[in-house]
Amino acid sequence: MPEDAAGSAGDRGAEVGTVFLVGSGPGDPDLLTVKAARLIEEADVVLHDKLPGPEILGEIPESKREDVGKRAGGEWTPQEYTNRRMVELAREGKRVVRLKGGDPFVFGRGGEEAEHLAEAGIPFEIVPGITSAIAGPAVAGIPVTHRDHASSVSFVTGHEDPTKEESAVDWDALADTGGTIVVLMGVGKLPAYAAELREAGMAPDTPVALVERATWPDMRVATGTLETIVEVRDDAGIEPPAITVIGEVAATRERVIAFLRNADGGDTGGDGA
Amino acid sequence: MPEDAAGSAGDRGAEVGTVFLVGSGPGDPDLLTVKAARLIEEADVVLHDKLPGPEILGEIPESKREDVGKRAGGEWTPQEYTNRRMVELAREGKRVVRLKGGDPFVFGRGGEEAEHLAEAGIPFEIVPGITSAIAGPAVAGIPVTHRDHASSVSFVTGHEDPTKEESAVDWDALADTGGTIVVLMGVGKLPAYAAELREAGMAPDTPVALVERATWPDMRVATGTLETIVEVRDDAGIEPPAITVIGEVAATRERVIAFLRNADGGDTGGDGA
Repeated sequence: MPEDAAGSAGDRGAEVGTVFLVGSGPGDPDLLTVKAARLIEEADVVLHDKLPGPEILGEIPESKREDVGKRAGGEWTPQEYTNRRMVELAREGKRVVRLKGGDPFVFGRGGEEAEHLAEAGIPFEIVPGITSAIAGPAVAGIPVTHRDHASSVSFVTGHEDPTKEESAVDWDALADTGGTIVVLMGVGKLPAYAAELREAGMAPDTPVALVERATWPDMRVATGTLETIVEVRDDAGIEPPAITVIGEVAATRERVIAFLRNADGGDTGGDGA
Repeated sequence: MPEDAAGSAGDRGAEVGTVFLVGSGPGDPDLLTVKAARLIEEADVVLHDKLPGPEILGEIPESKREDVGKRAGGEWTPQEYTNRRMVELAREGKRVVRLKGGDPFVFGRGGEEAEHLAEAGIPFEIVPGITSAIAGPAVAGIPVTHRDHASSVSFVTGHEDPTKEESAVDWDALADTGGTIVVLMGVGKLPAYAAELREAGMAPDTPVALVERATWPDMRVATGTLETIVEVRDDAGIEPPAITVIGEVAATRERVIAFLRNADGGDTGGDGA
């Protein structure tokens, strides 16, 4: 019973601590929320993996950082280890920040972590962060929705749970929505889903953009069409982590880039959408 | 020509200013980004409407606030007035923050504003904010994606451009994705799209949650199913602004709410999902 679990921590003499599931945003420390920055400052321990990126991690004192991505041995998966460690630290009375890249609840397994904490009787708080699925396109000059071009936007991951037997993503239905499609972690499987979307009837000249390391100092953008984007990716050497934006909105970049001050450079070209 | 436009500002003796299209997040001032907070502080003028919410607007000195939602007379729509005013102020050399609720590019018409600025030759920067479409569900204990329940999430608006003849949203295709559906500004048209989703074959017992004024001090949450949610809305008296979350993930709230410290209260009940 959750209540007993919380009680037993009290019995051991330590007040049970709180876990904060915190989104770190796309990587630029300036895009942390005011709350995330304060919680990191006040935390006893910050549990993280590599996804928040070097700039944000570099500003956290090493003495309170714990890389849970690395810690799992043979006995636990990284996720099991993280779940276990959050509970352990909270029961020691620690104030724990579980720092997650982007938003904790957008393909971040934050839902599973919240459920695990509730089952273990640990009080927790959710602190949303800016997802790179929106910020990545945005800083590249691409609005994921647009009154003239996209009445909906769908987010999917190109990097599914490897234990699933087949893709749970219905690319046909996504193409049918007529809205923008944003694929997170979508570099490796780009050829597969670009082909699926074409088979689903999406026009070959649909604009597509790849945004690598969005908001990081070495951010890069490459643009093409559904037909050319695999070649564009290969020519530009786009590597993970990157976001793929598929839809008419991707062409907005061309119309605004001359006056957009976000990107310092980094446009690797491509053949234009 | 954009360059000429920028040049003519120089001719009048003022260096052309920059416009920052800034997302204010869902309403809690703590969920502003570090960058948004700094830009508001440094701005000469903050152009806004009511969407950032009373807490954030209340912290901006009245002397630099300008409510563009109200200013349009008979001659201009509020959007035309805003576009015109951004350019005018930038040409006077002002540092302008155009503050938008949530994220500027998620149903915020930021794309149109960016295009207008580029056409007028005004340098601008895009500063993403946390969209209430993700943060609203999150602070209510609902992850919009979940490894076990949702491989995709789609965002649509219930409040479409009234000049469009028919809905551009394909509810059939959205239902077919099998993923979570989040409807922004979705209170008024709830009966219509709940019916469309049921006709599209979505199960009547699909969990649905309504989150009113997400992250505001008077936030409220009500939960039901696709079959019951209209009655739940009416019984609870849910009013705009609110987010609708449709999908298995909405049931996560029940599993975690006892230990979730975000919501101070505000659960208006409903019949459970």
